[in-house]
This record gives sequence, C-alpha cells and structure tokens, in this order.
Amino acid sequence: MLNQSAAMAEEAEVVKNKQVVLKNYATGFVKDSDFIIKTDSTMSLKVPESSSKGVLVKNFYLSCDPYLSFLLQKSDSSLEAQFSRFSLGSTINGFGVAKVVDSRHPKFEKGDLVWGITGWEEYSLIAEPDSLFKIEHTDVPLSHYTGLLGMPGLTAYGGLFEVCNPKKGEKVFVSAASGAVGQLVGQFAKLTGCHVVGSAGSREKCTHGSVLQKFLVIHVRADGHVLLSFHVWPLASFSVEIAFSISSITQDPVDLLKNKLGFDDAFNYKEEQGLDAALKRYFPEGIDIYFENVGGKMLDAVLLNMRMHGRIAVCGLISQYNLEKPEGLYNVASILFKRLRVEGFAVFDYLHLYPKFLDLVLPQIRAKKITYVEDIAEGLENGPAALVGLFSGRNVGKQVVLVARE
Amino acid sequence: MLNQSAAMAEEAEVVKNKQVVLKNYATGFVKDSDFIIKTDSTMSLKVPESSSKGVLVKNFYLSCDPYLSFLLQKSDSSLEAQFSRFSLGSTINGFGVAKVVDSRHPKFEKGDLVWGITGWEEYSLIAEPDSLFKIEHTDVPLSHYTGLLGMPGLTAYGGLFEVCNPKKGEKVFVSAASGAVGQLVGQFAKLTGCHVVGSAGSREKCTHGSVLQKFLVIHVRADGHVLLSFHVWPLASFSVEIAFSISSITQDPVDLLKNKLGFDDAFNYKEEQGLDAALKRYFPEGIDIYFENVGGKMLDAVLLNMRMHGRIAVCGLISQYNLEKPEGLYNVASILFKRLRVEGFAVFDYLHLYPKFLDLVLPQIRAKKITYVEDIAEGLENGPAALVGLFSGRNVGKQVVLVARE
Repeated sequence: MLNQSAAMAEEAEVVKNKQVVLKNYATGFVKDSDFIIKTDSTMSLKVPESSSKGVLVKNFYLSCDPYLSFLLQKSDSSLEAQFSRFSLGSTINGFGVAKVVDSRHPKFEKGDLVWGITGWEEYSLIAEPDSLFKIEHTDVPLSHYTGLLGMPGLTAYGGLFEVCNPKKGEKVFVSAASGAVGQLVGQFAKLTGCHVVGSAGSREKCTHGSVLQKFLVIHVRADGHVLLSFHVWPLASFSVEIAFSISSITQDPVDLLKNKLGFDDAFNYKEEQGLDAALKRYFPEGIDIYFENVGGKMLDAVLLNMRMHGRIAVCGLISQYNLEKPEGLYNVASILFKRLRVEGFAVFDYLHLYPKFLDLVLPQIRAKKITYVEDIAEGLENGPAALVGLFSGRNVGKQVVLVARE
Repeated sequence: MLNQSAAMAEEAEVVKNKQVVLKNYATGFVKDSDFIIKTDSTMSLKVPESSSKGVLVKNFYLSCDPYLSFLLQKSDSSLEAQFSRFSLGSTINGFGVAKVVDSRHPKFEKGDLVWGITGWEEYSLIAEPDSLFKIEHTDVPLSHYTGLLGMPGLTAYGGLFEVCNPKKGEKVFVSAASGAVGQLVGQFAKLTGCHVVGSAGSREKCTHGSVLQKFLVIHVRADGHVLLSFHVWPLASFSVEIAFSISSITQDPVDLLKNKLGFDDAFNYKEEQGLDAALKRYFPEGIDIYFENVGGKMLDAVLLNMRMHGRIAVCGLISQYNLEKPEGLYNVASILFKRLRVEGFAVFDYLHLYPKFLDLVLPQIRAKKITYVEDIAEGLENGPAALVGLFSGRNVGKQVVLVARE
C-alpha cells in the first residue's frame, strides 16, 4: 500500500499556481503596491496524505470584501482583535467559489462546486474545509455565490430581518446601496413592503469597469477591450468578447438603484450639499430602519433623522477603516431621546440560517424578482486593483475577481 | 343645587401656595438664578367644577431628575422635540409624592397618597391625573416613591431586565452609580448574580447634604443644623433635629457603593488618570453590560472595553446635557466588531410593568436586601439649588426636595 501511495503521489499532476502575496502591510489606504503577483509557485493537484481532511480546489471567483482591509493593515488597535492578520510574504485569502479537484474530506468529492474561504491563487489546498458550503443550485450564475448567494447575501438577510425586524410600510435607508450587501438589503426591504431609499457615491469616469443593462453586463477591461456578458439564466449565461476598445465607462448609481434595483428613491451623497438636508428631503417623516455600511458623517446625519424606536443595523463602517483616527459621532443623544437600537452584527452569527435564506431567495431569483449587480475584474493579476477600488468606491455592485472560467 | 355648589365653593379654604417659577431659560448649566420663589400665590383647596376629573393635592416630596434640564433650556435642537419646555413665568413640574385634598376623578379620593407628575409648589391642581399612581404600600418611606418605588426604580428595572437581559456571572458596569437609578441597577444586577462595578464622582466638601450610615441618614441643612433620620422600617422611620451645627459634610461615593450598596467594586472617576485604564483594571475580561447614565468620554472608554455581544442600555447622558456641542464619540467601530447592542430607552416604555416591578422589589425592600440612598433638600425654597446640584454631581443618592411632612 505504501508503495502504491508513493507511486500515486509521484503521478499527481503538478501545475503552475499564480498567487496574490502580501508584500507589506497597508498604512492608511490599501495600495496596489502592497501586493505582488507571484508567478513561480507550483501546486500538486493531490491532497497530501498528511492532510487528514484537506480539500484541493481550483478557484473560479474571488470576493473583494471590506473586512479584508483589517487583515492588510499593520495596526495594534484592540478593535481588530477578533481578526488574525495576513502574514507578510503569504498568499492572502477570502471568500470565493471553487471546484474540488481532490478531497480527503468525507463531505466533498472531486467535481463538487463549493463556496467559502479560499486563497487568492489559482489552486488552493484547504486544510480545514469545515466552513466550505457545497453549491447545490447551479441554475444561477456561479459568481453569485460570492455575493447574492454567499456571505453578502446572508449578511443582508441577517442584518435586515434578524436585527431590524422590518414591517410593511416602514421607511428604510441603506447606505452604500449599490454595494454587495446594500443592493440586496434594499430589494429584501422592498419585498417586505417597505419604502426604501439608498445612497451611493458616483463612480468617476473609469478606464475600465462594468455597466449593467437588462440581461447584459458591458465590461470594459483594463486594456480597453469590451466583453459582453448575457445573463438570461436559467436559460443561458454567456460572454462575447468584442474586438474594439473604448476609453471610458460610467454607471450612474442613482439610475442603477432606482431603475434597475427597484429602490423607491436614491441619491448620490457626493453631490449633496449636506447629508442632513438630503435625508430630510428623502425622509420628511424620518427613518425607521437604517442599514449602516459606511459610518462617519453619514451615521451622524442619520441619527438626527431617525424616528422614535428606530433600528440601526451596523454592518460596516467603510468610510472609517482607512482613517488614522475615526471621525467623531456627535448625535449620540438621539439614541437616548428617540429610544433607538443600534446593533453591530456579523454574518457569522447567522450561518445556521443559510438554508432558510436560500429558501427565501432562490425562488425570488428564479422569478426574476431580485437583480444582482456584479463588477467582475478579470484575471487574478487584477485582483489587488479591484480590492483597492472597493475603498474609493470605484466598484458598482459586488466586486468579484474572475480567476478562471469553469 | 347650583346655589349649594356656589356656597360650597365660597366655603373652600384658600391657602398661600409657595411656588418655584421659571424666570429665564438656562443657557449651559442651569443656575439658581434661573428660578424665582413666588410666595404671594394662593390656592383654593377645592377642585373647580369646570375641571371634570381634576385632583387637588398637597405636595410632600418633589423629585430632582436629569430630564428636567431639557425643559429648562432654550434650545431648538431637534433632539428635544419630544419634550415640551416649561413656560417662562410658570411653575415648573416634575415627579413627586402628594396627598389628595380634593378630587373629581373617580379613581382618587381625599386622603389618597399618590405619586406622579405634580407641580413644584405646595399645592397643585392636576387637571389630567390619569398618569398618577395611587400609593398602596405605606410601610416604606413615602419619599421612596420619587425614587426606588417611582420613576427611577422602574427605569432601573426596565433598563436592566428588559434592555440588557442580564445573566448570572455577567460583568456589569454602572456609571453615576450612586445616583437615583444607578444605585438600583447595581443592586438589581447583584440580585441576578452578576459581578457589578460602579463609578461615581466624589462630592466636594459641601456645606450641606446627607450622609448615609446604617439605618441612619445624617442630614446637614444649609443653615448648618443637623437632622438625623432613623430608618428602621418596617418598624419605624423618624427624624430628630439636633441643636448644633457643623461646617461641612462629605460622603465617599466609593465607600457608599462598596460598603453600603453591595457593589463588588467601585471607583471615583474624578480620581482616575484615564478611564480606559481604570476600566481595564476593574474589568480585565471586559464588560458584558453597561448601564449608561453619563455619556461622553465614559461611553467612549466603555466601548473599548466591552465584550463580544455586549449590551449598553442608554438611560442618560448627563455629562452632555449642558454642553453647547456634545463631545464626539470615536470608538463606534467597537459596536461593529464586538457586535454590541446599544439601546436608548425611557421609563414610559415600561409603565405597564409597574405591578410586576413592585412584586419583585417590595419583598426585597422588606427583607432589607435593597438599600436606597436619598439626598433630601428641605423646603421648596431649596429646590432650585438641589436641582442645579444634580448637574455638578453634588448629590449622593436620589435628590429629593421635601416640601411638607405628612
């Protein structure tokens, strides 16, 4: 047996394995130059016998998530105590969608599609795959398992329904509403019968990026080439690369929120003179529920505009993550006088709800009652730029990195 | 009949009615000079026939509560929208204990003892007495119905049990712990099996005030005379005025909290170099529950020291009420990372729990398992100074104004 195993190990295919490696810890904003793309690594496509329950996967999609910024920063703040930072010189990791190439874990076998924590590389050996979810439903775009059907989807679900308990007719405000989580919160709240307004920042004219049209994503690559992706699932989902280039592309987030995602109203916070005045205009009767993704001045303005017994689900504070010192919050007295509930939460509190979440959301997707916008950067080598863009609001929709097609 | 009524009205006794009247709105800290004591008013001790359900009461005790500061300030802040301010030239009002002198309300009759909103005056005509509570249990000091058995008691009960849901063994921190509400929160948490630490400010040496000893309150009046109150209820409760004077009186709040109120530990925040360091010393494993009475820098330091899934009941923010601009809160990210729940509340949400609250607390009082410290200012004319003292932390224990003895 030993000889046979040794022979099998020798036979295992060895492939090149491109990787995104952390070069130095970010100070302030994460930069492209904090990473290097390592092209000389290799990977044997066999789980080593020493790994009792390892799984080896080929990565298809990687997810750019705001929480990654904490793992990339050199900071001794006690706030980040719950995260363990990436090591310098090592491949970074995060949520992704992948296919099992080899498995020593009883729950997974070769050919299974999975989502969960994987590496920013072409192939990953996952030693502890207990937190991987097997993908059972493939009649929806696989990339959605980094967003709508993955961690951001469950985050939106848990934050809105478990933390905020929305009731029909309530007024809901969502910041970063075109982001991975925000766009879903707004749509879930609409399905509940709430009045929903979102805020987003306009993306500056970009030399590359994606624009959503009905059933079509126009994606302009960094080299100027245009890729058209047609999503007419469950029937079909295919991409066509067009042999011409354009110089810039822009998507208006207000148009996106109002006309494609079905929000009742939306505004571009970068075009507002004052956030308090904007909120008073969009919520003359005040806000019942605020889904917080950004923090800072927006949270301060929202506090002034909350209604009695309002609820604030704190999902993210992306405007604050790269600041040396966070901005001060001054309208704390609103929490007292309006008897507000302000609650921080994380998706990890709601993992047990994933089956219930799928029961709600899959029929809505199939009935085309939920739209999901993704901003797909192509190629692992464009991963760092895509991640960096998250913190300057460059993405419209869930930022994904395409590593390989199925 | 008409003639008879007219005759009765003429017969009604008319008495002098000393009143505390608002002279001008406070700017910043409330000052004694914002009030005048009006001595030339009179009151007929009969509810007018035009008042279909009025109640006329003789006031015994008045309660000095922090919320009164909002009603005394000239401010257009939207934060105070839920309060209707006092009118200049009118008698101020607040919670108090009184005896019904005359009633046209079916629920009350002459001789009933009541607590609820009344005027800062000797006699009050209460046109809408629906929010008065009849006092059914008189084997406890009547003044307690401004505190332990009144609004502060129910506030402590609702905030701790309904908002924070304490569990045995949890670590509880209470600020303003020697105040009307804080001293009860700490004792209720101890009864639940929690580890309780309180913070309070030292009172400077005062020329008058009260000191609690076992069964005895030593009260030094403004004129230097000493009054000893013996509380050996349910057996007896009596006061003795002593014919000598002393020049100053001090109560150490740490001693009070640890040795008289049964807190596990306590500290004087005015003597600490840094609040974060103090909290780390008293809560090396962090805080599960924070009962917030003060706000500002204390809240910011507490956020850094909360444990995962901690709860903060926001009952008051007394350090902020008199500031032109509130202090900024910087550690908001703790709410997200530690998945905290921060919830503002008011006693008005829990009025329906008053009978349940009495069921819990009366046996504890009778079994002497709850101690309640009051700081009684004698005489309506000393009311403004007592109220003003609340905001500089001059009181130790619940600040009460004695208007008349039974």
